Amino acid sequence: MRQAGRYLPEYRAIRAQAKGFLDLCYDPAMAAEVTLQPVRRYGLDAAILFSDILVVPHAMGLAVTFEEERGPVVQRVRSTQDVERLEPAAAAGRLEPVLGTVTRVRAALAPDVTLIGFAGAPWTVATYMVEGGTSRDFAATRRWAFGDPEGFGRLIAAIETATIEYLVAQVTAGADVVQLFDSWAGVLADDAFERWCVAPTARIVAAVKARTDVPVIGFPRGAGVLIERYAAATGVDAVGLDTTVPLAWARDVLQPKVAVQGNLDPLLLVTGGAAMEQRARAILDALGHGPFVFNLGHGVVPETPPDHVARLVACVREWRP
Amino acid sequence: MRQAGRYLPEYRAIRAQAKGFLDLCYDPAMAAEVTLQPVRRYGLDAAILFSDILVVPHAMGLAVTFEEERGPVVQRVRSTQDVERLEPAAAAGRLEPVLGTVTRVRAALAPDVTLIGFAGAPWTVATYMVEGGTSRDFAATRRWAFGDPEGFGRLIAAIETATIEYLVAQVTAGADVVQLFDSWAGVLADDAFERWCVAPTARIVAAVKARTDVPVIGFPRGAGVLIERYAAATGVDAVGLDTTVPLAWARDVLQPKVAVQGNLDPLLLVTGGAAMEQRARAILDALGHGPFVFNLGHGVVPETPPDHVARLVACVREWRP
Repeated sequence: MRQAGRYLPEYRAIRAQAKGFLDLCYDPAMAAEVTLQPVRRYGLDAAILFSDILVVPHAMGLAVTFEEERGPVVQRVRSTQDVERLEPAAAAGRLEPVLGTVTRVRAALAPDVTLIGFAGAPWTVATYMVEGGTSRDFAATRRWAFGDPEGFGRLIAAIETATIEYLVAQVTAGADVVQLFDSWAGVLADDAFERWCVAPTARIVAAVKARTDVPVIGFPRGAGVLIERYAAATGVDAVGLDTTVPLAWARDVLQPKVAVQGNLDPLLLVTGGAAMEQRARAILDALGHGPFVFNLGHGVVPETPPDHVARLVACVREWRP
Repeated sequence: MRQAGRYLPEYRAIRAQAKGFLDLCYDPAMAAEVTLQPVRRYGLDAAILFSDILVVPHAMGLAVTFEEERGPVVQRVRSTQDVERLEPAAAAGRLEPVLGTVTRVRAALAPDVTLIGFAGAPWTVATYMVEGGTSRDFAATRRWAFGDPEGFGRLIAAIETATIEYLVAQVTAGADVVQLFDSWAGVLADDAFERWCVAPTARIVAAVKARTDVPVIGFPRGAGVLIERYAAATGVDAVGLDTTVPLAWARDVLQPKVAVQGNLDPLLLVTGGAAMEQRARAILDALGHGPFVFNLGHGVVPETPPDHVARLVACVREWRP
């Protein structure tokens, strides 16, 4: 999950200097600074690149803006003609500023602190491109995928091409691990999940692994029971668990196959105190005996008191198997 | 799922006669008519009461309005003082018009057509009361539940009380089955799901079963792996499956314990044709050999061509085990 953000005063100070959110993502000095802030403040074991999954559609030639109230607005892609106008081969080159951030952060981090790069998974990125932003039900995307799977498949293929080059370039620039965020994986039935989440992810993982030697983490948010299939069939080394994945199931079903990462409810970081600490320990007790990365199950919310994050980090460090 | 709706011209004709959406729910003649319309048009095996889960907070004394663009707006409940002002014991009595709809529909239906009554489950109804409507992340509800479980528990208890009386009254009025919609069950971690979804549902099911002899269907939408726990621990006779529940898992894990109901993606009803029919048959092939009610995995969308629904019904009727 993004570690930097509006809950940190030092982030807000940098954010105020950037014109728009994308300007912040494309300024290597500022983006590196906000990437490093939470690592400095909390002494975290890993840094996650400060960027956004929508830099890929932007680098493929679409207009992308971030509006304070409305969220991201993306130039819509609704037809195969729209897909043909995309420039997936040019995307990684245009993302040079983000790669510059990766290089700066890697150089600034202690050698034992891991740098996690990332991209959006094709299904999730496609939903933003088809809907023109976020959505409650992704109806336009599902209608296209169901009614014209061949045309929609071309969109997915274009995103795949751009994503593979971008992730490989992140590794070349210094990322130690890469993560694929499939934030909207949880709206598809099993057959559609197989076609639009599992298969594209498997192709990306295979291509990245053929050209680099870094682990890949997949995060099929909200995929429920289908996470088992995702863990078995995509080739990812680790699976991010959203808040709702039951701990005993993750331990018994997923952890024998892959490392797992997660999954504290970020609202418990707002609550803090005993409720937060008890749940953090329950997560560690369940998953800490196998391959595991402690994390949240979703992003930090702006209302989070920074001291609660410090207390959580201490709580995780105090835990012993 | 609601069978009536804006996709049907005969529904739109009645809807145009009612001032607001709640006026339609509270007019037994009109509500009975729209309940019966899809049964008449398609020869369905069951009718589902035309109403809304928010009649319960309304009947407990809160202002509730439905706005075309914004969706439902509910007078907020944010403190134990707000909870104390609720009137759960009065709710079922105030819902007399809805019970009148039940009686009219039951009288108009052929004896072999089942009438399904329903209410919202406490967690889901509470989210609307705390957020003041729908929400993307239910942050205020989760913060209350995590930070002050005792106070939030009083809100849940008030909804439980009203819901038990309301469901029993629906059965008395003529409902053959009742369903509990837990539409936002899928945002809670395992421990919170146990406390705020499983336990209240189990108490409602036990109370309804102590006073009636009808089956109870539960619909923990989006609960993923936790649906297994829900099926085992709530006492429901059947579980509604959202679109994303994998068919093989539902057959192997759930169907030995409970009947299942679902789960065609309603967007496939918009697509129609071979894609819709293939998926309907895949659902029937997987689940039709055990206790099963064919249904959608979510509500019918307004863009649905009515002819596609007719074709789906024919497709289901043609299927043989």
